[in-house]
Amino acid sequence: MLSVIRDLTVKDVRFPTSVEQLGSDAMHTDPDYSAAYVVLETDCNLRGFGLTFTLGKGTEIVVCAVKALAGLVVGKCLREIVSDFRGFYRLLSSDSQMRWLGPEKGVIHLATAAVLNAVWDLWARAEGKPLWKLLVDMDPKQIVSCIDFRYITDALTEEEALGEIGPIVCGSSSEHQMLMEGYPAYTTSCAWIGYSDQLLQQLCTDALRSGWTKFKVKVGADLEDDVRRCRLIRETIGPNNTMMIDANQRWDVAEAIEWVSRLAEFKPLWIEEPTSPDDILGHATISKASLFILCHNRVMFKQFLQAAALQFVQIDACRLGSVNENLAVLLMAHKFKVPVCPHAGGVGLCELMQHLILFDYICVSVSLSNRMCEFVDHLHEHFTSPVVIQNACYMPPKDPGYSCEMFESSVRRHQFPDGDVWRLDMKK
Amino acid sequence: MLSVIRDLTVKDVRFPTSVEQLGSDAMHTDPDYSAAYVVLETDCNLRGFGLTFTLGKGTEIVVCAVKALAGLVVGKCLREIVSDFRGFYRLLSSDSQMRWLGPEKGVIHLATAAVLNAVWDLWARAEGKPLWKLLVDMDPKQIVSCIDFRYITDALTEEEALGEIGPIVCGSSSEHQMLMEGYPAYTTSCAWIGYSDQLLQQLCTDALRSGWTKFKVKVGADLEDDVRRCRLIRETIGPNNTMMIDANQRWDVAEAIEWVSRLAEFKPLWIEEPTSPDDILGHATISKASLFILCHNRVMFKQFLQAAALQFVQIDACRLGSVNENLAVLLMAHKFKVPVCPHAGGVGLCELMQHLILFDYICVSVSLSNRMCEFVDHLHEHFTSPVVIQNACYMPPKDPGYSCEMFESSVRRHQFPDGDVWRLDMKK
Repeated sequence: MLSVIRDLTVKDVRFPTSVEQLGSDAMHTDPDYSAAYVVLETDCNLRGFGLTFTLGKGTEIVVCAVKALAGLVVGKCLREIVSDFRGFYRLLSSDSQMRWLGPEKGVIHLATAAVLNAVWDLWARAEGKPLWKLLVDMDPKQIVSCIDFRYITDALTEEEALGEIGPIVCGSSSEHQMLMEGYPAYTTSCAWIGYSDQLLQQLCTDALRSGWTKFKVKVGADLEDDVRRCRLIRETIGPNNTMMIDANQRWDVAEAIEWVSRLAEFKPLWIEEPTSPDDILGHATISKASLFILCHNRVMFKQFLQAAALQFVQIDACRLGSVNENLAVLLMAHKFKVPVCPHAGGVGLCELMQHLILFDYICVSVSLSNRMCEFVDHLHEHFTSPVVIQNACYMPPKDPGYSCEMFESSVRRHQFPDGDVWRLDMKK
Repeated sequence: MLSVIRDLTVKDVRFPTSVEQLGSDAMHTDPDYSAAYVVLETDCNLRGFGLTFTLGKGTEIVVCAVKALAGLVVGKCLREIVSDFRGFYRLLSSDSQMRWLGPEKGVIHLATAAVLNAVWDLWARAEGKPLWKLLVDMDPKQIVSCIDFRYITDALTEEEALGEIGPIVCGSSSEHQMLMEGYPAYTTSCAWIGYSDQLLQQLCTDALRSGWTKFKVKVGADLEDDVRRCRLIRETIGPNNTMMIDANQRWDVAEAIEWVSRLAEFKPLWIEEPTSPDDILGHATISKASLFILCHNRVMFKQFLQAAALQFVQIDACRLGSVNENLAVLLMAHKFKVPVCPHAGGVGLCELMQHLILFDYICVSVSLSNRMCEFVDHLHEHFTSPVVIQNACYMPPKDPGYSCEMFESSVRRHQFPDGDVWRLDMKK
């Protein structure tokens, strides 16, 4: 705990997923799943690993932003940081010159997440616990002291968060339940928009055999196509399994309403990101359907909740300002009685998100009703403590930390543009 | 018009304004006014100059983002770009891999503005006109063809923008009026938060003598301080001149209501940025006062207008996606009958904004009621065609282009970190 952070390095790591149309959707037709990957070195043999997820081009911008933040981190002692984690969050997110570049949105916020994820990883390793267990074992006061309440006090005050809205001291039964059964997941691996009908059908059939019961389908590029694909998937998975659809911000408001009406016959549990993620009022207009939205910070989530413009909260370990800001959103969702279902997939998101949703279940919501964590079966082999899925559930990780350390060989091979994967690719 | 863009260079240019507390406010206590400065080279002896404004640290991140966008620009022919400017805007703002970094917000959007500002400058130079005149002379259809209507069609459709909401063919009388009298300005130069009472009083007195009648005061750091400063300024400028206050996002919602009530006795025309710029619903709650807000994109402005959460629209040549996105906001504000007052100051913003507000007056609003353009008297000496202020009015620029070309010697001296200004500073 006395470790001083001596160095911060950051690398641009990219996986050429676009080659197989992995991750393709209506707006992101050719993503190369990537990360700005942060390593903190300390003076006592401990290291912290963090990342933020990106889609390929432009990852170097986030890397540049992480380097700009490094000066605020290097030289600090871990104990000093975590004893005033709210202050440290504010230091990074509200630097007097750099906040102009956000504030708390876009590149600078993605970079803030990468850095803070590494700090949280370091803290959990220093305590010898997986991150979810570090959170579960914390005094609720300490949890609340990590949250920056600026701009959300009209929806959630610190007093409320310390009272009945706040985290509860863990009852051992809910923790035990998670350790035995895991947290339920849904799969997005079966229905990327670039996949052929034959492949969709085969992947769904295989997934059913492996115990999956909840399936997300990418839509939004072409309506007749979507109708055909949704019908095929509904027929394959049957009427009792769960289907969700994701438009990845493709539509305008009127278009969303029309499109969603056409797809209603396939009984999706939710519609994900029908339009611009900035459009709170637009979503409120659309939301006769059940909407599932990922916002860029706690101020946006606050308003979506206030306006009843979403029916499912989609948190993200990298889009939001790390654990600190996710804690704020978990508590606001709890107050507004809206279920939280994490965004995962990409690279490293499943590894990260499982920790937050385990904490949510054990100490905040204590409910699985309409709750599940996304799962995508890509790129886990690059992590030293990859997720473990059993019976379509996330099994709680046991290794200390936040599960996003990559193998050095993976980092080396995929570093952009000098890693083997990219040098060889460029010779084509 | 056939010029092909052969090269794009971008430089990190910073002015050490924090030394004298120029530009200081409640959230930005020590800004070094800076720019990511873009130069487009063509094959026909024409160059285009653009910039985006920043506050010092982190400008290198925006420079990195501009470089990432350069590949979408270099090699393109100017005619090809402007014949489908909406498509080109979409190309830059919605790149399938890079939109993850925004979309249309933060660093990537600031970089998009720098690049597009340079393209607009190039276009105006190719036509031999100042930018405002290029816009004024355009067919309304061509104006509308520059706007990306994605995500705003529930507030403004292309059909409306081509009809009575849209730009009108310039009546020569309003243009003539601008050429003779200029566009009214207000000054922010007198009341930065770091200035002493004595300096405030002296600057206000001097400004009154030079013909200024409208004054903006920075507030938000300390309430008793603000009361004293506002009283001093109101006494100095008298009851008939105009005073506005700017909190630079300092407050939470309840705090804003309390603070604004206390300052109401000084009769400010507007309260600028009382809380997070993301907080539409928060502003709607506060807005018994008249609010003046700068948003990060057209989707946010749309909602502030729909929710009546602002009473003055603050456009920005760099925060928004250049002329293209500002045109969308001007037309939406016109439809909602809300006056537009540009954000200026910083470095180069006055030079840029004057063009847009002249177009707004001549072809859209044709009104000066409750309308004025911010002016700050800093750093104009670095531009080859600096703003001309007469009787507290912006006189329409006459040189071809968008007025943001800097002297090469200024760029050289202020380049960070190698320019003389910074090298010598670091030796201290």
